[in-house]
Amino acid sequence: MRVVVPFAAENPKTRLSGVLDAGERAAFARAMLADVLDAVRAAGHTPTVLATAPVDIDARVRVDDRSLTAAVNDLLAETDGAVAVVMADLPLVTPAVLERLFGADGDVVVAPGRGAGTNALVVREPAFRTDFHGASYLDHRAAANAVGAAVTVVDSHRLATDVDERVDLVEVLVHGDGRAPTWLANHGVRIERGNGRVNAVRVDD
Amino acid sequence: MRVVVPFAAENPKTRLSGVLDAGERAAFARAMLADVLDAVRAAGHTPTVLATAPVDIDARVRVDDRSLTAAVNDLLAETDGAVAVVMADLPLVTPAVLERLFGADGDVVVAPGRGAGTNALVVREPAFRTDFHGASYLDHRAAANAVGAAVTVVDSHRLATDVDERVDLVEVLVHGDGRAPTWLANHGVRIERGNGRVNAVRVDD
Repeated sequence: MRVVVPFAAENPKTRLSGVLDAGERAAFARAMLADVLDAVRAAGHTPTVLATAPVDIDARVRVDDRSLTAAVNDLLAETDGAVAVVMADLPLVTPAVLERLFGADGDVVVAPGRGAGTNALVVREPAFRTDFHGASYLDHRAAANAVGAAVTVVDSHRLATDVDERVDLVEVLVHGDGRAPTWLANHGVRIERGNGRVNAVRVDD
Repeated sequence: MRVVVPFAAENPKTRLSGVLDAGERAAFARAMLADVLDAVRAAGHTPTVLATAPVDIDARVRVDDRSLTAAVNDLLAETDGAVAVVMADLPLVTPAVLERLFGADGDVVVAPGRGAGTNALVVREPAFRTDFHGASYLDHRAAANAVGAAVTVVDSHRLATDVDERVDLVEVLVHGDGRAPTWLANHGVRIERGNGRVNAVRVDD
């Protein structure tokens, strides 16, 4: 199976600007990408990074500066056989959860992200095309139905947790064990356990 | 296995006050509870509602007006054999995901909620006690370790999604298929699919 990890190489994770500056956001995004690549390899596959600009990382990189949807759809069109798409901002993925994803039956396997997004896909139906804009989970189900493809949904908190906002950092710190939580800890980002809700805070020395 | 569903009967779901008034929040909380009870029964168990005040619902009800932690711990102390605790605000649970939970090995099985919470537990270790205050997922892991209990974590978006805030209603509308999403639809709560992020909005006629 071809495994593709899309990566927004330029100005990533702007919604974390209240916690991290631009350079830090770029470094943290790279740490999350590295965690995903590690998990893909540990699950027995060789990932290709599909990046919007050249990126210096120890993996095969394909640069396509168009939209995510256009870049992924070209890749689907040119590939015989199954293609998996796993987003780069999923630092909680483990080899075990990727094995659940890759091993799930179905012409189209979807792992929803919170907020009606799509965080990972396995596409075994040649006629299926993606549309990552807006409520892509619903759109992908509809697109699969439109080409007669059977859909399987993978129910995973780890796959559903894409990291975009400060609140998502709590998940990384609580459930992660790779480079992303280490990067956060090394940069003073901790969970704050007060009364009731748990927050991610930055404690600069 | 004894299956307990804790339910805050009085003034529930205050963080939804920007979308629903007090009477509506009570009705919506009841719809979510009913979805959880349906799923528990479909998974082959008879639920007991552990409520903070009397509640008129078609299920066995045990009233305990103390804290959630105290009420659950008394129940653990008096029960021989396994006890499962499944929160009442998990309208995405299905019989299949409850079977994953109930069937998981481990002296203590934990399903984390977002924000370091605990949304469901299976307790097979008689010495284990709960503490639902604050970062309870971390506390429950530590408490299990302290009594030598092996911990299993269930990785499920459906179990991780407790419904407290407006943003959580998106999950109910996108992934739910029981009474809770129907209640929302009947009260004018819809998802709004604009550019990018998906929101839950109320469209009163």
